[in-house]
Amino acid sequence: MASLNSYVLDLAKKAKAASQVTASLPASKKNRVLLEVVRLLGRKKNALRRENEKDLRNARKKKLSPVLIDRLTLTPKRIEEMREGVRMVAGLHDPIGRVLAAWRRPNGLKISKVTVPLGVIFIIYESRPNVTSECASLCFKSGNAVILRGGSEAFYSNQILANIYKQALRKHRIPEASVSFVTDTDHRAIDLFLQLEDWLNLVIPRGGESLIRRVARRSRIPVIKHYKGVCHLYVDERADLKQALRVALNAKCQRPATCNAMETLLVHQKVAPRFLPELGRELKKARCEVRGDRKTRQFIPWAKLAGKGDYGKEFLDRILAVRVVPNLDTAIEHIQTFGSAHTDGILTRDRAAARRFVEEVDSSSVMVNASTRFSDGFQYGFGAEIGISTDKIHARGPMGLEGLTSYKYVVEGRGQTRE
Amino acid sequence: MASLNSYVLDLAKKAKAASQVTASLPASKKNRVLLEVVRLLGRKKNALRRENEKDLRNARKKKLSPVLIDRLTLTPKRIEEMREGVRMVAGLHDPIGRVLAAWRRPNGLKISKVTVPLGVIFIIYESRPNVTSECASLCFKSGNAVILRGGSEAFYSNQILANIYKQALRKHRIPEASVSFVTDTDHRAIDLFLQLEDWLNLVIPRGGESLIRRVARRSRIPVIKHYKGVCHLYVDERADLKQALRVALNAKCQRPATCNAMETLLVHQKVAPRFLPELGRELKKARCEVRGDRKTRQFIPWAKLAGKGDYGKEFLDRILAVRVVPNLDTAIEHIQTFGSAHTDGILTRDRAAARRFVEEVDSSSVMVNASTRFSDGFQYGFGAEIGISTDKIHARGPMGLEGLTSYKYVVEGRGQTRE
Repeated sequence: MASLNSYVLDLAKKAKAASQVTASLPASKKNRVLLEVVRLLGRKKNALRRENEKDLRNARKKKLSPVLIDRLTLTPKRIEEMREGVRMVAGLHDPIGRVLAAWRRPNGLKISKVTVPLGVIFIIYESRPNVTSECASLCFKSGNAVILRGGSEAFYSNQILANIYKQALRKHRIPEASVSFVTDTDHRAIDLFLQLEDWLNLVIPRGGESLIRRVARRSRIPVIKHYKGVCHLYVDERADLKQALRVALNAKCQRPATCNAMETLLVHQKVAPRFLPELGRELKKARCEVRGDRKTRQFIPWAKLAGKGDYGKEFLDRILAVRVVPNLDTAIEHIQTFGSAHTDGILTRDRAAARRFVEEVDSSSVMVNASTRFSDGFQYGFGAEIGISTDKIHARGPMGLEGLTSYKYVVEGRGQTRE
Repeated sequence: MASLNSYVLDLAKKAKAASQVTASLPASKKNRVLLEVVRLLGRKKNALRRENEKDLRNARKKKLSPVLIDRLTLTPKRIEEMREGVRMVAGLHDPIGRVLAAWRRPNGLKISKVTVPLGVIFIIYESRPNVTSECASLCFKSGNAVILRGGSEAFYSNQILANIYKQALRKHRIPEASVSFVTDTDHRAIDLFLQLEDWLNLVIPRGGESLIRRVARRSRIPVIKHYKGVCHLYVDERADLKQALRVALNAKCQRPATCNAMETLLVHQKVAPRFLPELGRELKKARCEVRGDRKTRQFIPWAKLAGKGDYGKEFLDRILAVRVVPNLDTAIEHIQTFGSAHTDGILTRDRAAARRFVEEVDSSSVMVNASTRFSDGFQYGFGAEIGISTDKIHARGPMGLEGLTSYKYVVEGRGQTRE
């Protein structure tokens, strides 16, 4: 444990020292490093696949599920996508050194609010190795140093990816510790990092709810996270029902395993008799299970009766909970009670109802007449996404580069003193 | 403990319910409530002083220091200042419902980023009763519910102040739990609140370093804070020495007990022979002790030799640590090593040196040719200050109303689905 302790502390200290260099790198230099990574990812394609094969062999030995093994696999196409991702990050505007606001005070002081990096970011994530490259490129572009702690299943793939970043950094004489990878797979290392508030500035856990809860509970460093996405759509009495049908099916079925897929549908009782039978037919075609209340089952007779835990549950699967509600108030109340403050939407032509819904539903993204599936950094036009936050402190909703920055006040005077 | 537990949980739940009402109050209504508070503070002046007298009697019995007793005392002048403070908050722009940015995506979706309140804010503070009114007015104006936990020395004063807010809320039919005051003085109540992450959104501890560290260590809710203000000024080789003298004296002596007062002065060795003797004379006149390194003592012979703990110490008193440095690099390094990331400044006519200092000093406020004493929400023109943050997550530096808000994304479509 003593040696693990000193390994962790050493890594954190080096990352902090590196962050003081990356903080003031010009955009052009950062982009050159990223383009070098793109080049190396291409040149080392075969080595990458060899290392990935080691992970895959272990995964097969451990009899991981086919879904997990698929997520773990680095195909040539996925390597190309990874390169494209880094190229895109290189093409984004530099988020650092932007003047967010500037004003002059009556005494002549000029005050500017200027963006700066956060410092050192610790990212804990599970199996997909492309997350390694995504996180490294975004943190580096935003002037931060990053410490990556990937899942043990992707150990070899992650390590070679981190080494490719290190090689690109070395070539441009930037401290390699700007991108660090935790090679000690001892789980206790995570807990040790989470205590280092003097060296680390932010923790981002990406993965299942239990991982995230564990990190949040133990960390002394601020954590940005969402536990889960229990997204709702509410079909209002004044919805365009044809549109509502299309949007609801998209929100549930386009990619059911994502955090912004719909999990519960609320339907106003006035439109339920017209809306639900057709929805039922379409869901049946899509092989989507329905768990509804008694009223729902009047119109979708094959639906199961929703149990206690079905509302507020993140199925991440072809299962939809449905409830018929008497009015907008009940819909909002349901979302406040069972939602996870991720993404919730209303389908309506009634502007007053939409306004009330938008004001009273306290979620990081609120949709009006659009699929919940749009809640995503790329769909919002950020060009990148490091995660989605349901917290209210710092970044909220889909987080791009901006969420990886802070600011400082720069005050310029001519010798002013305070009286 | 069971009854304390249910007292705390009940208070938190009621505050959360209240916050759902305050979140969407129109500005005009919030301002009317605040002006009613101003009126009541005037009408209940005598009752206020009577309750304050109870606290003062206890304080004298406990033999609190004259400084603490002074801070505790509500004079007629201070009550007037408190009223003026609430009136000013009523006059500030509503920070809620502001559209921070809005754009349209190629698929026609309109995305807006709109400010919202944080929810429930828990504030823990020490003796000054005017903090009660300051915090209550700022949290209410920003649409948040607040739970106030003041020091036991000001118990009676705080309670009547909270009751005045409740009376004003009642008059306008807003839930009284929008402003709650913890009447159970059991210290364990604080720890219980700090666990309630599902009900509370932010904790702001205001007080001494040990209180703040204790809260930060135990809280499962995000905490915004600064542990201490170890502020530096660096007199560069190209400083205007006359100006530097005025600014340094102001930063140290104008109000030494504040967190933005200078604690350590760094002087470039080239100007030390001209600058330090005169500084020494002025500090002597101001009865300010000097603790310097050997070089400092060449020019201020009566200075004490600085001990190990003097650099990086928050004296909050008429004591100044001084160090002669060979160059700008050493000055920056000193600040990075010993500073608290609160406020640090450079005095120079050299633009390149100023630029490097501003870039490399990682503090929440960086001053160029101005006193550190300006680091303050009022001096920055925010019209209010809830505290100063040296964290990098969420608000940094002096925090006004804006720091008490978050945002949500509102996405408006015409039935768009994701392909």
